[in-house]
Parts: sequence; C-alpha cells; structure tokens
Amino acid sequence: MVHAVYPGSFDPLHNGHVDVIRRASRLFDKLTVGVTHNPLKSTALFDIEERLAMVRESTKGLSNVDAESFEGLLVDYMRARQAGVIVKGLRVISDFEYELQMAHLNRQMNADVETLFVMTATRWSFVSSTRVKEIATYGADVTKLVPPATQRRILERFGALQDDVPG
Amino acid sequence: MVHAVYPGSFDPLHNGHVDVIRRASRLFDKLTVGVTHNPLKSTALFDIEERLAMVRESTKGLSNVDAESFEGLLVDYMRARQAGVIVKGLRVISDFEYELQMAHLNRQMNADVETLFVMTATRWSFVSSTRVKEIATYGADVTKLVPPATQRRILERFGALQDDVPG
Amino acid sequence: MVHAVYPGSFDPLHNGHVDVIRRASRLFDKLTVGVTHNPLKSTALFDIEERLAMVRESTKGLSNVDAESFEGLLVDYMRARQAGVIVKGLRVISDFEYELQMAHLNRQMNADVETLFVMTATRWSFVSSTRVKEIATYGADVTKLVPPATQRRILERFGALQDDVPG
Amino acid sequence: MVHAVYPGSFDPLHNGHVDVIRRASRLFDKLTVGVTHNPLKSTALFDIEERLAMVRESTKGLSNVDAESFEGLLVDYMRARQAGVIVKGLRVISDFEYELQMAHLNRQMNADVETLFVMTATRWSFVSSTRVKEIATYGADVTKLVPPATQRRILERFGALQDDVPG
Amino acid sequence: MVHAVYPGSFDPLHNGHVDVIRRASRLFDKLTVGVTHNPLKSTALFDIEERLAMVRESTKGLSNVDAESFEGLLVDYMRARQAGVIVKGLRVISDFEYELQMAHLNRQMNADVETLFVMTATRWSFVSSTRVKEIATYGADVTKLVPPATQRRILERFGALQDDVPG
Amino acid sequence: MVHAVYPGSFDPLHNGHVDVIRRASRLFDKLTVGVTHNPLKSTALFDIEERLAMVRESTKGLSNVDAESFEGLLVDYMRARQAGVIVKGLRVISDFEYELQMAHLNRQMNADVETLFVMTATRWSFVSSTRVKEIATYGADVTKLVPPATQRRILERFGALQDDVPG
Repeated sequence: MVHAVYPGSFDPLHNGHVDVIRRASRLFDKLTVGVTHNPLKSTALFDIEERLAMVRESTKGLSNVDAESFEGLLVDYMRARQAGVIVKGLRVISDFEYELQMAHLNRQMNADVETLFVMTATRWSFVSSTRVKEIATYGADVTKLVPPATQRRILERFGALQDDVPG
Repeated sequence: MVHAVYPGSFDPLHNGHVDVIRRASRLFDKLTVGVTHNPLKSTALFDIEERLAMVRESTKGLSNVDAESFEGLLVDYMRARQAGVIVKGLRVISDFEYELQMAHLNRQMNADVETLFVMTATRWSFVSSTRVKEIATYGADVTKLVPPATQRRILERFGALQDDVPG
Repeated sequence: MVHAVYPGSFDPLHNGHVDVIRRASRLFDKLTVGVTHNPLKSTALFDIEERLAMVRESTKGLSNVDAESFEGLLVDYMRARQAGVIVKGLRVISDFEYELQMAHLNRQMNADVETLFVMTATRWSFVSSTRVKEIATYGADVTKLVPPATQRRILERFGALQDDVPG
Repeated sequence: MVHAVYPGSFDPLHNGHVDVIRRASRLFDKLTVGVTHNPLKSTALFDIEERLAMVRESTKGLSNVDAESFEGLLVDYMRARQAGVIVKGLRVISDFEYELQMAHLNRQMNADVETLFVMTATRWSFVSSTRVKEIATYGADVTKLVPPATQRRILERFGALQDDVPG
Repeated sequence: MVHAVYPGSFDPLHNGHVDVIRRASRLFDKLTVGVTHNPLKSTALFDIEERLAMVRESTKGLSNVDAESFEGLLVDYMRARQAGVIVKGLRVISDFEYELQMAHLNRQMNADVETLFVMTATRWSFVSSTRVKEIATYGADVTKLVPPATQRRILERFGALQDDVPG
Repeated sequence: MVHAVYPGSFDPLHNGHVDVIRRASRLFDKLTVGVTHNPLKSTALFDIEERLAMVRESTKGLSNVDAESFEGLLVDYMRARQAGVIVKGLRVISDFEYELQMAHLNRQMNADVETLFVMTATRWSFVSSTRVKEIATYGADVTKLVPPATQRRILERFGALQDDVPG
C-alpha cells in the first residue's frame, strides 16, 4: 500500500491545490494532506483549524483523502506516519528549484521517502496562496480561484465584495 | 487611443526605469507611471510624494507621460482609468516568472487588459531599487545608476558621500 | 502611427500564434505578420506560400493585419518597411532567454527598433509548431491546437485521421 | 492497479535511468520502460533491440518491470496499453520546461493520463545519454556512468579503452 | 599575487562552503573568507564572533586562508584590502541570477575587481544555511551537512538531538 | 603555478570571447585558449587554422596567453597539458545549466581539474558565434561584435558589406 502525503501551508487552499489533491488521490492508496503548523509563527492569515477545515470540506468526496496538521520536519512526520511518498505540485521554475533542493535534502535525511512531482493544471498554474490573499485583502473577487470552503471564510474575514468589482 | 500604465513602487526610480519609460512613451498615445501606494506598509525608503516627484522631474521632457499614485489592485486601477495596456520591464528570469504569473492573473480578472513586456537596456539590466538602496545606505556613489532627481534625494537622506568613494 | 511586425516561421500557424496576432492587432495601428523565408533551407514542412495563406485566412477578420514573407535579417526588414516595433510571444523561460538575446542584438544593430513581448494565453502556452508537426506526422488530431486553415492543410498532407483517435 | 510507463530513447541506458526505474518500480504496481522506436530516423547509436536488451538486463531483479518498444505518440501508446501514469525523471531546468510542456499537451490529448516527475539522484543529475555517447566516442571510460549491460555494448562498439584513461 | 575574497554571511558555515574554500585555496595565492557583519540587523542565528570561529576552526589546515569580518559594501572592502578577485559558489539558477547581477554591479562600481564562480560539489548542491537552521531548529541531525565546528555550536544552541532522529 | 585552459570552438572568435580571455589572463599564470578540433565534423564555418589565427592575432598583446587546438575529451587534454583550471564564460541561464553539467561530469572524470566561471561583460552578454555567423551570412555588419582578426576573415568569406547597412 502506498501512502502519500501532500504537505503545505494551504493558507488558504486554492483551486490549484484541489486539482493536485484530486489527481494524486487516484494514484495512491491513501493521500494525507499535511498542513504545516508553526505555533511560533503568527504570519498565517488563517489558523490551523480553519485551514484543516477548508481542506476537509473541499475533499469530502474523495474517500482515500484525509487531512492532518503537523509540526517539525517533514521527514520526521513521514517516518511517524510510515508514509513513503511526498507529493508536490509543480507550476513554475522557481517552485522547481526550491522543491528539487528540498527533495534532495529530504532524501538524504530519510532514504526511504520518495518525492513525486505532479503538474498543476495549466489554468491554475498562475494561482498561489500569496496572490489569493493579496486580492482578497483589497476586497476583490476570488470566486474563480478558490473552492467554496475557502471563499466563504475569505468573505467572513474581509467582508462583502466591493460594489465595483464584478462577480 | 492606447493608454498604457507602467506600475511599480519606484522606491527609488533608477536609470532602468527611466529607460523603460522613455521607450514606452514612444509606443503609446499616453503613458501613466503608476506608483503603488500602500499606506499600511511603512517599509518604503521614500514616501509616495517623493517617489512621484522623482518620476515627474525625470520625465518632464516627455509630453505624453504623467505620474499618479494608486492603492489596491492594479486591475481595478486600470479599469478606473480606462487604460488597456500594462507595461512591465523585463531584466532577468526571476522577473519574468513573477511577471508572467501576474499577467495571467490580471488577464483572468480583467480580460480587457493586456500586459506588454519591454526589455530593459543591457547596461541597466543589473540595476534594481533594492541594490540602489543598499549602496546608498553605505554612503557609496549611485550617480551612474539613478537620474539626478533620485540622486539629490538620496544625498539629502544619507548625507554627503564618503571621502574614500570615487565620484 | 506605430507599425509592428510579428516575425516567425509559422510552420505551421497554431492557436498560440493566432492569439498573439489578435491581441497585438488591438494595440498597434498596423500589424504585419512577417513569415521568414529561407530558400536555401528545405526543412520547412509547409512552403512559404502555404504558410502565408494560413496566416491570411486565419486573420481575415482583422483589418489592420497583413502578412508578408521576408528573407535576411529582421532588422533590415524592419528598416525597409519603416516598422518600429517587433512583437514576440512569450511562453516559457527558454523562449525568454533566446528572445532577450535577439532583442538586445537587434537593438544594437538598429537603435530605432523596439521589441515588445506579449504573453501567450495560458491555454496555448504549451503549443508549439514543432509539437503540432510531431502530432500530425503520427496522424493524430490537432483540431484543438490549430486554426481551420492549418488543419485543412495538415489533413491534405497527412491524410485522414486514424480511426482510434478521438475527434 | 496503477500501471506506469517510463518512456525514453535510452540510447544508451545510463545510471540515472536505472535509478529512476528502481525507485518508480516501488511506487506502482507495474512499470513498463517504453523505448521509443523510430524506424525512419537512423541517428540512434544503438538499435531498438540493443536498447531493449540493455533495459531488460539491467532491471531483471525488478519483478514488476518490463520493457517494450513503441512507435508513434506516447498518448496513443498509453491508451493502447491502458496505462494511466507517465513517469519522467527531472534533472535540470531545461528538462523541466520541456517535460512540463509535453505533460500539458499529453493531458490535453488524453485527459486520463497523468505525468509524474521523479527526481534523479544528485549523483546522476549530470549524466545524460548524449554525454555518455560523447565520452564513449573518444574511447574514455564510462564505467561510473552506465550499468554493465550498457558498458559491455559500448566496449564492443568502440573497442578497448585507451591506455591513458584511468579505470 | 592574486588575493581572493570569498564573501558571505556563513550563518552558519556548512559543508558546501567548506568545499568552495578548500578548492579556491588551491587556485589563489591568498584567500580571505569575508564574513559580512551587519550590527543593525539582528536576524543572524550566530553572532559575528561565532561565525568567524567556525570558519577559522574549519580551515586551520589551509595555510593561505584567513577569515575576517567586514561591514559595508563588498567593493569598498575589496579596495581596502587590495584584493582583486571575488569568489562565489554556484549551486542553482536562482543563485546564478542574483550573483550575476551583483557581479555586474560590482564591476561597474570597481572595474579592477573580478568575480569568479566556483561550482559547489554535487553532493552539497542542495545544502544552504537556511535549510541547516531550519533542520537544527527542530532538533534534527545536521552531522552530514556541516563541519564539526558548526555542529558543536548548533548542539550548544539547540540542545541534544531528539531520540527518534538517526545519527 | 596555475595553468588555465579556456576551451571552445571559437567559430568565430567574438568580442565576448576576447573579453573573457583578457580578464582570465590577469588571474592565472598561464592561459591556453584551447580550440576544439573535430576532423569528422565539417559544420564549422572556419577551419581550425583560421580559428587559431583569429585567437592568436587578437591576443598577441597578452604575453601569458597562447592558443592550441585539441581533439577528444577536455579532461584528457587537461591531463596531457597538466593544466588544473578550466575557464568558462557565463552569459545566460542556458549556458549555466549546460556548463554546470559539464563541470560536474569533468570533475567526476578528473578530480584534479577545477572549473571556474567568469562573467562575460554586460555589453557582450548577447553575442554568440551562432548569431555572428547568422548576421554575417546575410552580409550585415559585424564590426561592433567581433575583433578585427575575425572581421577581416568574415569579409573575405562573405564579400563586401551591403550598401544599406550602416558602418
């Protein structure tokens, strides 16, 4: 049985993430979305419970997918959960370099873990959590970029859309 | 009539920016240098009035160029000003990836806006506002990197040049 | 009046090209699609007349667009046609580096010419003439990748589609 | 059951390939090494039978791995074999861009196929078939770069090693 | 006599740095490891004295290598020390772009200084000070990534290793 | 004594090459320009004697520089000449990746050899032999891109400049 983990901060979850989760869930027996929890850093927009809830609501149709938070190093978490595959989404070159570096480092620290890169769908390749937060901060519409579970929380946080922004 | 906007923080304006403005001004009927204003962030070295003044002084020979500050999302500003073209300077790969991502996102949010990339002249391709600030902080000479309007303000801010730095 | 040239071999014209032409035609007074003609090289799949015809058929709704073939250096062609802007589509990093190098070189050879980069739409960012030819060679369907004017000529050249390939 | 295909020309098979095969074989129920066969192109150093033999000899300890040649488009081959996953090794940026383009194109042509990227081990990241052929052509030692099945065939083809090259 | 400077923050020194120092020491008559000291920034994990000590302990077998801290611009430091060569390690593309930009800028500010790039060994290409700090923060083992002089200080700072992390 | 080799095909020598040679000659005791000679490949524009002559004429003011042709692998040539340093010019990302791959491979094949990368001056960063040949083929002026020794041979080969190209 291959157990894969898709790690990230998911602050917030966007459509590119959901796309990776959906496709990875078809390839592995079990897929855990691992939401990184850093109690010392307070820069996250959404707290760990909100982020876990977004993932759970958005993946409830996928029976072999669950979500969990973890602290510390990813390789330690993989070992504790006896998971053998790290799944990462690839969008652009800068992702690639960082991820390749992390993958080499993770492999050196835990030889039993394998990192697999999944391509984000073309239409979501330009979406990132940073952009979503930036757009949301200005009260603009993120409907096309995030799943409903994220959108609802963004509305609660930032209030109703501005009138001059098309729906 | 094609109205183009060249957005940026211009903190401060350097010769690479001036080069892009000069060339873009020949291609479009009107060019607005849009200086991003974020009243909540206080990390800028020069305030919005100083940055607008630098742009205005350095472009006063170009009759179809003006400068304005704006807050919020670029696509909303483009819509409000009925401007159809975003002009961006390209220097290096990392610029390119970020700008391409932003351009795709902007197009999704406002299908009527087009992003055009202008190549920065080879001799300015290594100049950035971050480097200019770093050099100025240590009291070194930035004469070759910025227009007089920027240089005067840097001198006012950081004092006279150190003796051991060649003019 | 700004006269722009969109140069390329267009062997064959695909949807990414058509997308660039359509958007560039809205930004410049006149847009000439410059099809490079190299009578010594015989590696092109379609001859110069076929390639010009594909462009003309696919752009006939755009009144300020025409198509022409040219031999020799692009800068010489720009000078002969008194055109001031080279338009290039940007898809990926490797495009970017090559195009940036060419743009710097062209500027050194002819200071009056400006190169502007237009972003190819996300959905066509992975299409290239090389891939289209490769797919067509194996008799697979290119309907979604090229305009009708290209598709008809591909069918004439490579025969009807194989049965096992979905429309 | 997930059936994955690792496609390539393997001309010749080197240690980076073997590393990818070994790791991918642990992740999927079945892994087919798909050796591309192009009877019209005669630029390959080793013919299709030799390349298949290298793969088979080098993977005989891996029970869920087999090797096959195929002609035509990869997506058609995937469909014919009812295989759902394409495995590709990632070494460097230029790989990444090309592979990402191909993966997007393949997904557009066959929505049921998924491309997964596996990281080549750091120590093989600089090895490619092109370099191996170049080194072999000059009679230098490739022992550290290829498996025995490849090395034996290189020796048969290019003769004994030169005396002045260290083993 | 060629005097080279290898500048950096070395916070902390890792095996990739040591590898560059060792190889550069064989190429130049004198090599100074220049540890950047910024008394205003307090983001460093180790203070300047600790970082200098790590470098000195780890290079004591190399007779033509010394270590010094410096404040201000690198070009001013080069001039003050009459050193003609800046040595930089190259690992990945993002290094490359930043370093190339800095090298062009340094050359413009001081035409007598030359930047030479040394390749970090493949096995250390994925190690960076940022990763080392991240791993150390979580109490995991960095033995394979840093020299003993760094490791000892990390243990003093972060305490003994966690039990569940393999040596 | 450090003996460095600057290898390449130099077909033809251009100003970017000359710039690298001049700067490298100040850093090493001896610099040999190693012109690769491949008697089997006939794709070179200039034969090996012409290319050597271009280098020799263009570097005759540099007393510690000589030029030689070599066949076979660079590492074997380095060993035969007891030279310890390979010098390469870096211009753009694609150079970087290829060169890094070659440098890692060369180091694996000959641990005593070190590759150092020198930055090409900004103003020559867009010049390559391929572009020079392309421009020369069309009879355009390459005066600004190549040294006199190259220019004279290009004129002999391609005839006088066209009238409409500015000097």
